[in-house]
Amino acid sequence: MNAKAFRSLSYGVYVISTWDRGRATGCVANSAMQITSSPATIAVSINHDNYTNSCIADCGRFAVSILSEQTDPSIIGTFGFQSGKTVNKFDSVDYEVRGNLPIIKDACAWIVCEVIDKMETDTHTVFLGKAVNADVLSEQDPMTYAYYHKVVKGKSPKNAPTYLTEEAPAEPKWVCGICGYVYEGEADFESLPEDYVCPICGQPKSIFVKK
Amino acid sequence: MNAKAFRSLSYGVYVISTWDRGRATGCVANSAMQITSSPATIAVSINHDNYTNSCIADCGRFAVSILSEQTDPSIIGTFGFQSGKTVNKFDSVDYEVRGNLPIIKDACAWIVCEVIDKMETDTHTVFLGKAVNADVLSEQDPMTYAYYHKVVKGKSPKNAPTYLTEEAPAEPKWVCGICGYVYEGEADFESLPEDYVCPICGQPKSIFVKK
Repeated sequence: MNAKAFRSLSYGVYVISTWDRGRATGCVANSAMQITSSPATIAVSINHDNYTNSCIADCGRFAVSILSEQTDPSIIGTFGFQSGKTVNKFDSVDYEVRGNLPIIKDACAWIVCEVIDKMETDTHTVFLGKAVNADVLSEQDPMTYAYYHKVVKGKSPKNAPTYLTEEAPAEPKWVCGICGYVYEGEADFESLPEDYVCPICGQPKSIFVKK
Repeated sequence: MNAKAFRSLSYGVYVISTWDRGRATGCVANSAMQITSSPATIAVSINHDNYTNSCIADCGRFAVSILSEQTDPSIIGTFGFQSGKTVNKFDSVDYEVRGNLPIIKDACAWIVCEVIDKMETDTHTVFLGKAVNADVLSEQDPMTYAYYHKVVKGKSPKNAPTYLTEEAPAEPKWVCGICGYVYEGEADFESLPEDYVCPICGQPKSIFVKK
């Protein structure tokens, strides 16, 4: 089986959010899709190890914030490479409560869903949600997962269904030790100012390793 | 609820195929996503009204052929706008049997799955399949649903989760009465040769209506 075939499946990039007993929390997912049109239902796949999983199960509702190509990629770092168990992820982003759930203001659209069914797998729960509220926030193009990889140079969090052990690049490159972001700027990495931070997860320059 | 928000979800374009008692059949879907990475599982959503749905349930296996931007769009017409109950869809396309299932040769990758679970909704079945075989066929970029709409100018089959009643365009245009393809060529539509056919579903010029 050639696992590279899976890379040809197309996805968007989403923040799935919910309440953790009154505290806003969430995580990044690329596995979200509409299942039925009338009533509109959305399925999302969330790893058992993501704190958001048990919060959705408890709350019974989730929101999908659809990130655009112009969304600040540090949001993916905040929501994709930290745990909501120990970090108040929403503290560092602009959000508002719409349809009774926390929504990323920098997204291009949002959908709020009520959980109506779920399917368990070895590692992930597929939540089926009935859309109860939705709106468009901007006309910007949605960020696809391919765009995130090719243009933003981002990697998959280890809990993502699409996570694969990446092959080392031929030329050694400076890689963020937390999120896997590969520095490809024109300037020599070592000459960058000491306050340089990873544009994806905000970690300091010192966390980068040559790979 | 602003249903336009659903249009910002990102998808690919796939042919989901299986055996109908020894006869190859299938349909177009945009709702396919990887759910777990180890073992690799894929979920696909198929309308109850699609003949392919009951064939997958009977066969217990399905294949996902991932269409690329270079895939002949008439394949979408063949598999998306006709029923496998009355038409041998595979008669008009190049295919081969890989992993014991019929695969579209003009796709960029394929994945063969064994059904291990399913979730029913009012109108669709979500089949969860464990990938048992997969390969890459070309390095071409996968076709996204956005590309299909924007570049190929295709519409959603009526059984698609993403089907919405489209608003009429401001300027009247010639539209295929079967698949909804909108003619936007430079030549005046009426001056086209009489053997012009819809590039999506292959229907004759006479089936086009001015809308």
